Amino acid sequence: MKRIDRTGAMIKILTEHPSRLYPLSYFTELFGAAKSTISEDIAIARRILEQFDQGEIVTLAGAAGGVKYVPRVSQKALKGFQDEMCRRMSDKNRVLTGGFLFTSDLMFNPQVAKQAGRIFATKFLEAGADYVVTIETKGISLAVMTADALNLPLVVMRRESKISEGSTLSVNYISGFSDQIQKMSVSKKSLMPGTRAIIIDDFMRGGGSASGMVEMLGELDVSVVGIGVLIATTRPQIKRVSEYFPILYLDKSEELEKGIRILPNESLLT
Amino acid sequence: MKRIDRTGAMIKILTEHPSRLYPLSYFTELFGAAKSTISEDIAIARRILEQFDQGEIVTLAGAAGGVKYVPRVSQKALKGFQDEMCRRMSDKNRVLTGGFLFTSDLMFNPQVAKQAGRIFATKFLEAGADYVVTIETKGISLAVMTADALNLPLVVMRRESKISEGSTLSVNYISGFSDQIQKMSVSKKSLMPGTRAIIIDDFMRGGGSASGMVEMLGELDVSVVGIGVLIATTRPQIKRVSEYFPILYLDKSEELEKGIRILPNESLLT
Repeated sequence: MKRIDRTGAMIKILTEHPSRLYPLSYFTELFGAAKSTISEDIAIARRILEQFDQGEIVTLAGAAGGVKYVPRVSQKALKGFQDEMCRRMSDKNRVLTGGFLFTSDLMFNPQVAKQAGRIFATKFLEAGADYVVTIETKGISLAVMTADALNLPLVVMRRESKISEGSTLSVNYISGFSDQIQKMSVSKKSLMPGTRAIIIDDFMRGGGSASGMVEMLGELDVSVVGIGVLIATTRPQIKRVSEYFPILYLDKSEELEKGIRILPNESLLT
Repeated sequence: MKRIDRTGAMIKILTEHPSRLYPLSYFTELFGAAKSTISEDIAIARRILEQFDQGEIVTLAGAAGGVKYVPRVSQKALKGFQDEMCRRMSDKNRVLTGGFLFTSDLMFNPQVAKQAGRIFATKFLEAGADYVVTIETKGISLAVMTADALNLPLVVMRRESKISEGSTLSVNYISGFSDQIQKMSVSKKSLMPGTRAIIIDDFMRGGGSASGMVEMLGELDVSVVGIGVLIATTRPQIKRVSEYFPILYLDKSEELEKGIRILPNESLLT
């Protein structure tokens, strides 16, 4: 087998399973090649991805070592995504009665979700999370893509407890839209105590859902090591959670021509 | 730039955006190479993926032509996935009170969802769909991965109509779990009349949700060109929709040791 075949196949296999560590023996067996040959292949694959701003290939030495693809997003790629989202979300037709912004098409768009997921993964790469957690419904595609990028399981909290979830734990929280008390629940089987989680959601206004998820995770003895949202409103400035990372800000003001303005979070990855 | 760099980068770019057609000029510009050189690169990339059962690279000739990656799943890969799912789902601890099967961890597992999505995409590759449609909540990760594999937008029907959805259309349907009448709604903005959709869901018992989605899509003048579910029960044998494609069957019987049995759909891709 030629080097071009090995590096091409290696790039496909690694990038399809982001953050999954492959022992070098996986590739020595697959390609029937020596370890030194595979190490050279890896160096070439790394250089190719680097050259085209396509993320990183990382090698870990030692017995538990191996090679993995880290879908790290560059500042340049982040800015490109933010600019495109600002443009697409600023369409006047998106503003609904009551000043709400129609975003479902974007939140469920697979390519949007995939890139947002990689951005969250880049932000929380070093957080040592064991789970990605979200609450139904609009954040699920972002959360599953984040979980994919970090090679983590996804846990989805429900607004009602379902019979197909088995024993569940429930907490009450204050919904930002209605300012009413709502309930969220999660299967007890879903999360192991003593672990760490990242919370991902589509939208944050008051931070009520995020704060509810933090409380729920606390009840299950799971620490929250990061909160990422695609859009956070600029007001209220004080939210029910203290640290959160939006990709975009939504500024709502009657003084603005369209009533709203979408801005990038310029300090997200700095 | 060397051939090994071009084919490696090409594989990364194409496989990351499945089913998206790239004009040859995209690569001639990116690599600063002649069209004939790029055509040779494509042939090599195609051979590499073929060799490792990693999907297809397809070229379309003509002015509107180009090159795309089709994440076609082979019979062998399908069988591997089905066997693994049967094994993981047959765990006795998954059987809940009332005979329900706990599957949330698998449905939201990114790698499971990704492979299921590619299987549905392979099944419906020629269906000419414009949308992938699902209903919240447990089918969303499968549906977004199917949409990603087919390069289509995803539309998620809601169980309640939300203020952030704008004008919505609602239909009533009979829920299989409760045999009660429930309501689903979707934003009118989400789907264009005269188009075609694939329905993806996690589970089918009576076919009530699927039949509700078919009715809803009919109201919006959208034709259904395929229905895929990860699991369908063997009973009732007659469902509320006539044609549907499960990856797995769930057979429930008191005569079985565990009360349930998970079986592969052996004719799915034949």
